[in-house]
Amino acid sequence: MIILGIDPGYAIIGYGVINKSNLSIEVLDYGAITTPKEDSLPIRLEAIDASLKFLFDKFKPDVVAIEELFYFKNQKTIIQVAQARGVIVLACQKYCGQIYEYTPLQIKQALTGQGRAEKAQVQYMVKAILGLNSIPKPDDAADALAVAICHSQTSPNLNQNKV
Amino acid sequence: MIILGIDPGYAIIGYGVINKSNLSIEVLDYGAITTPKEDSLPIRLEAIDASLKFLFDKFKPDVVAIEELFYFKNQKTIIQVAQARGVIVLACQKYCGQIYEYTPLQIKQALTGQGRAEKAQVQYMVKAILGLNSIPKPDDAADALAVAICHSQTSPNLNQNKV
Repeated sequence: MIILGIDPGYAIIGYGVINKSNLSIEVLDYGAITTPKEDSLPIRLEAIDASLKFLFDKFKPDVVAIEELFYFKNQKTIIQVAQARGVIVLACQKYCGQIYEYTPLQIKQALTGQGRAEKAQVQYMVKAILGLNSIPKPDDAADALAVAICHSQTSPNLNQNKV
Repeated sequence: MIILGIDPGYAIIGYGVINKSNLSIEVLDYGAITTPKEDSLPIRLEAIDASLKFLFDKFKPDVVAIEELFYFKNQKTIIQVAQARGVIVLACQKYCGQIYEYTPLQIKQALTGQGRAEKAQVQYMVKAILGLNSIPKPDDAADALAVAICHSQTSPNLNQNKV
């Protein structure tokens, strides 16, 4: 099962693609989609949609696992990120159709066994579980791999996270 | 010039289509796109995109005028509305490409001459300017017509609202 993990954002969107079989879990790709701040909102949203379409065409994921938005203090930031996340969710729906959302707490719990784990500990587990030589960069890519791993470790029969 | 005005939302999105010539301004259509709360986020976003595509295909607007998001007190609401607004802005970009944003203050100023006008006064001016027999319903459609009228009254040479 190919899982595309997404860490939503506006200027930077992390992605991670893993292949989970009964016996193994392997990383296929990870990285970040970035949108230049010189560009207008419509152009940046269009670029996000096009970049995601490229990823879906290339990896043909069976499912998408995406991090839920938690509440920011900065309302300007949250509006921008939420606008981008709407475009991301729609792209996932159009190009795949199988979408699961996880909270930061669920992701930390799945990777480290504790919901209050530090970011560094989650990143260390991403590296360890995927057998990588170093922690994936940027952080957004590591976060995206984390949500993909979180999905791979959640029992399909018990999964309440489908949207 | 055909102007599509949009009052962004998640459960309800107002729209209004006007035709502005040198001599007259006439309403072509108005109404609201609604998404049922029983449906999931991806399904509702997909429905918004499809409904907007239908409007663009039908009326082929030259420009879109869309209300800016102001800051809500309820963060849950603002995330939902902003996610939908991202999808709306992307649809406007894909299906038209000429997008102008106006703040509530600018809209009130353009329609009534004062930025602190009451909602009822703005609605009354929508009815008067378009020569309608009654105030358009729902409120979201009246708001969408208001932003379209606001665009029609803003001098193209001085317009700073293009996005």
